[in-house]
Amino acid sequence: MNRSAKSDSIDTHHLSSAILDNMVTSTLMLDEQLYVRYANPAAEQLFSQSARRIVDHPLSQLIQHASLDLALLTQPLQSGQSITDSDVTFVVDNRPLMLEVTVSPISWQRETLLLVEMRKIDQQRRLSQELNQHAQQQAAVQRSHPGSCMESAQVDWLAR
Amino acid sequence: MNRSAKSDSIDTHHLSSAILDNMVTSTLMLDEQLYVRYANPAAEQLFSQSARRIVDHPLSQLIQHASLDLALLTQPLQSGQSITDSDVTFVVDNRPLMLEVTVSPISWQRETLLLVEMRKIDQQRRLSQELNQHAQQQAAVQRSHPGSCMESAQVDWLAR
Repeated sequence: MNRSAKSDSIDTHHLSSAILDNMVTSTLMLDEQLYVRYANPAAEQLFSQSARRIVDHPLSQLIQHASLDLALLTQPLQSGQSITDSDVTFVVDNRPLMLEVTVSPISWQRETLLLVEMRKIDQQRRLSQELNQHAQQQAAVQRSHPGSCMESAQVDWLAR
Repeated sequence: MNRSAKSDSIDTHHLSSAILDNMVTSTLMLDEQLYVRYANPAAEQLFSQSARRIVDHPLSQLIQHASLDLALLTQPLQSGQSITDSDVTFVVDNRPLMLEVTVSPISWQRETLLLVEMRKIDQQRRLSQELNQHAQQQAAVQRSHPGSCMESAQVDWLAR
């Protein structure tokens, strides 16, 4: 896989678009008035709206109720630091969404904007249980092969 | 903010790169042999390696121990579905990293690859506590304004 850095740069930008289009993480860019400048497909799905109806609209129009004061989301513009709240509820379309929300400052075309990353919490926990069951089955299989026993025991201990 | 869709497309690709460069979510693209094809800066930081030392290397070389069988990460190539495990431990540089890991299938240049999104769990919980304290202070201020009392009570109920 030999690549020159120069020929790669256009590819990299296209790759970045493909990644954001396929991410599970709902991603928004907001200006300091909390108007949406960008929304990826996961964010469209979260808010049950097309990007056209999200972009250039205030975030507050997309959310019926929020468990935190939306004005708090501008904190990273002052502090220059990311903030994360793992226990946010947004009510959208009369449905409560349990989310983990991270907001970071981002420089874009001489402006400082807000980059918002959102993950559903319920979905994570449910899928996690399914995968853990699978992993436990795999671990049971591994235990019958003594060679890998030590390694998996160490990792189990660290995970607790 | 009037924009034409065409003149926007180059901007959109550059914007996507800026977003991935600033995200807190560690993002990797892997091929079916679990070789890394792309790593964003958050992933470089997670693995304490520059992208140059990550890209074109197998994921297994970056991780000393993993609490799940890395081969499980290829599941989305067969199922076409994302999988999430919210309780993954990777040992990197002798430090245990507690992570939530989501793997999704992604089409890129006629190949189906794996898009990996990773979030640190400890960090999330710590910062969440700080922000919750701030939010509670804000809620206390709101309670002294009866007009917004009903709304915040509803959201509190939903958040439980």
